Amino acid sequence: MSDPVSSSYGFVRLDAHMADDLSVVNSARVSFAKHTDTLDIADKALINFLMRERHGTPFEHNAFRFHVKCPIFVAREWFRHRIGSFNEFSARYSVMPPEFYIPEESAVRHQVGKPGSYTFEMIEDSATRENARRAMSSVIKQSIRMYNSLLAGGIAKELARNVLPVSMYTQFYWTVNSRSLMNFLQLRSSDAAQYEIRQYAVDIEKHFAEIMPITYSSWIDNGRVTP
Amino acid sequence: MSDPVSSSYGFVRLDAHMADDLSVVNSARVSFAKHTDTLDIADKALINFLMRERHGTPFEHNAFRFHVKCPIFVAREWFRHRIGSFNEFSARYSVMPPEFYIPEESAVRHQVGKPGSYTFEMIEDSATRENARRAMSSVIKQSIRMYNSLLAGGIAKELARNVLPVSMYTQFYWTVNSRSLMNFLQLRSSDAAQYEIRQYAVDIEKHFAEIMPITYSSWIDNGRVTP
Amino acid sequence: MSDPVSSSYGFVRLDAHMADDLSVVNSARVSFAKHTDTLDIADKALINFLMRERHGTPFEHNAFRFHVKCPIFVAREWFRHRIGSFNEFSARYSVMPPEFYIPEESAVRHQVGKPGSYTFEMIEDSATRENARRAMSSVIKQSIRMYNSLLAGGIAKELARNVLPVSMYTQFYWTVNSRSLMNFLQLRSSDAAQYEIRQYAVDIEKHFAEIMPITYSSWIDNGRVTP
Amino acid sequence: MSDPVSSSYGFVRLDAHMADDLSVVNSARVSFAKHTDTLDIADKALINFLMRERHGTPFEHNAFRFHVKCPIFVAREWFRHRIGSFNEFSARYSVMPPEFYIPEESAVRHQVGKPGSYTFEMIEDSATRENARRAMSSVIKQSIRMYNSLLAGGIAKELARNVLPVSMYTQFYWTVNSRSLMNFLQLRSSDAAQYEIRQYAVDIEKHFAEIMPITYSSWIDNGRVTP
Repeated sequence: MSDPVSSSYGFVRLDAHMADDLSVVNSARVSFAKHTDTLDIADKALINFLMRERHGTPFEHNAFRFHVKCPIFVAREWFRHRIGSFNEFSARYSVMPPEFYIPEESAVRHQVGKPGSYTFEMIEDSATRENARRAMSSVIKQSIRMYNSLLAGGIAKELARNVLPVSMYTQFYWTVNSRSLMNFLQLRSSDAAQYEIRQYAVDIEKHFAEIMPITYSSWIDNGRVTP
Repeated sequence: MSDPVSSSYGFVRLDAHMADDLSVVNSARVSFAKHTDTLDIADKALINFLMRERHGTPFEHNAFRFHVKCPIFVAREWFRHRIGSFNEFSARYSVMPPEFYIPEESAVRHQVGKPGSYTFEMIEDSATRENARRAMSSVIKQSIRMYNSLLAGGIAKELARNVLPVSMYTQFYWTVNSRSLMNFLQLRSSDAAQYEIRQYAVDIEKHFAEIMPITYSSWIDNGRVTP
Repeated sequence: MSDPVSSSYGFVRLDAHMADDLSVVNSARVSFAKHTDTLDIADKALINFLMRERHGTPFEHNAFRFHVKCPIFVAREWFRHRIGSFNEFSARYSVMPPEFYIPEESAVRHQVGKPGSYTFEMIEDSATRENARRAMSSVIKQSIRMYNSLLAGGIAKELARNVLPVSMYTQFYWTVNSRSLMNFLQLRSSDAAQYEIRQYAVDIEKHFAEIMPITYSSWIDNGRVTP
Repeated sequence: MSDPVSSSYGFVRLDAHMADDLSVVNSARVSFAKHTDTLDIADKALINFLMRERHGTPFEHNAFRFHVKCPIFVAREWFRHRIGSFNEFSARYSVMPPEFYIPEESAVRHQVGKPGSYTFEMIEDSATRENARRAMSSVIKQSIRMYNSLLAGGIAKELARNVLPVSMYTQFYWTVNSRSLMNFLQLRSSDAAQYEIRQYAVDIEKHFAEIMPITYSSWIDNGRVTP
């Protein structure tokens, strides 16, 4: 068993996709029994019309499959999104790798404001920040050592994990269409989202922007609201 | 406006897909943080295990996009399948083409048996079969002519369609993953399904068998039950 | 078999419900491990906050079960709403009653404007309106007579219905939560919806307004947008 | 802040329901435009037929709303069930109460067998069992103290929770229909499920059995398979 390590970031890997702007246009145009093989200027206007009027279904005829590695507390928010498919690492059947999340110094923050309009700001005092990081790291490492010790003593994996913190890294596959993806991004790359999931959402957003550029820019132009 | 025509079959066209057996294996193996690039014999056993034990989620990380043309009464059964995406021809905004379904002679059938276990058999008398086809065709053509006459009189399309029968052809895009597809096939290519939707299900099944052959044969071996 | 009759309206019947404004508040307040038995002024503000910020999940912890009778073409739009449950009359196993929809005179309309911004207005000439109604009625009655004649000749119900128009009345049960209900109302009681489904949506809306009055008025105040 | 305490069990509380066997029968009988106000012997046969033939939709026209308190690792499995609604305690906005799960002695187990057919048995040596419980408790209490210390130092709640283990108690509302409930029970009250979630599933099952007794006994008779 290797030593517990802080890994300040996991990954977002696009595993496969079946997605382009053309599929939006063709699935919308089936209303008129029309089909095209290339996009033209009228199609851009159509995508913008669908987005603005929130005709969402034409944005569902595509799929992105992502492989993600992130802390458990991030995965917990992610899995609340029900329109899509997940398969995750199993801590019942596999030993959890000793990897955990500790915020970089600039992300050691306090909460400001009142319910309904909280914001989060970096704690000013650098010693406080550094102490918090060290303290977290120390107690998490101790929990991981206990996990390994319980495993060594013959305790079932599914039970030994009881002591592991929500900062441990997990991994999963996520398959989702662009309509549900926009809903994810609206909620998770917004300022109201927790800093950590926002970092992953930013990566997801880059893939979306690259693969469906017209849909993406139309979504931006219409206020990042799910159609 | 062209004359109403009987078109005894529409089509199933596979428009795009992101699907293979490997994706089943890799999404299942994320439980163990394993990933492979090619399938081997153990993977076939894994797919069979997942199917038999009905671990369904690994069969969701893929997508098929179909373009389908079929009668309205077939589409009505199809759209009951909620896990998937649909966009359909709009009879509010487009004039319905004058195409309708009439069963081939061998499909002119009567219902035998009692509730819960009906079967359907070809009507024996050939004159009865031929008369039924002619009678259907005649009254449907009359309805279509009335539709066109109402349109010519300035009645809104969405209202004029009021007179059109459920045998009219519609068309739609359908995007679905293989788990939901197996559920569709279990119900719609079974003997209990209506003859007409079964013809489309058979076509859908061919695409599935070709693109995910191991998953498909495992599904057959396990009694065509949705995992 | 009774004579085909025009029945200009079906019904919306609330069969059961498990819904009130309090459930919205309590499911939202579980975030703070709070629970209340009665609503106060702060709770109204909370419901309004959830609606405005589009925190939709607290609006899902309730259920309405409706029994609806409407024309097939209305049911077709209704069944596109995938978040909810449906069971419908089966024309495979039961003979369709000879009831059909004909618009009242004021609903005989033509389509005005261009794609993306159509409106519908009553046709001015009363003779045209009356002729359209009579012509529809006549051709539909003929189709229903043919349906009955095919049944009498031994043709299976599921096949004989081939000739029936989309104006025939069907009926179904629909169970839905208030979040999905608001989405239904946003789309189907809007000016962009077809006149006929709007009449049903208006009835659905009345039940919603009566049973969840604070949620309803908050939804109205926030522009009838689904949270 | 009170001392961290081990709470060996949370709760399952039925908050409300709109469910009975009659709704299954009436939603199925809408196929024949039939409606009844009381159940008779034929209705029991109908429910059994629907269950056996896996006609699942009539089991969806009902709702159960549960309030649940359980450890995070149990909640994580629970939230994988996508057909249903959840609202959960927020560790971003509320301080987590210092309550955690430690298995009773008889549940301190090891894993036996091989992948695909693991079983779990109580560890024989009582000293090992007692040591494991004490060790878990000790390291978890330390993590909770660190959490409180980070909060006291001004660290945001959403970040301080980083150190908390998955054995901490959370709570949530869950609203679900009986079809999805049967799927939950098939998977989570089975021998293949982890011991801890099975305890909650057993409680859920009691409510289901009491409220829909005919549906429940039919589900048992048909092998606890989701229709």
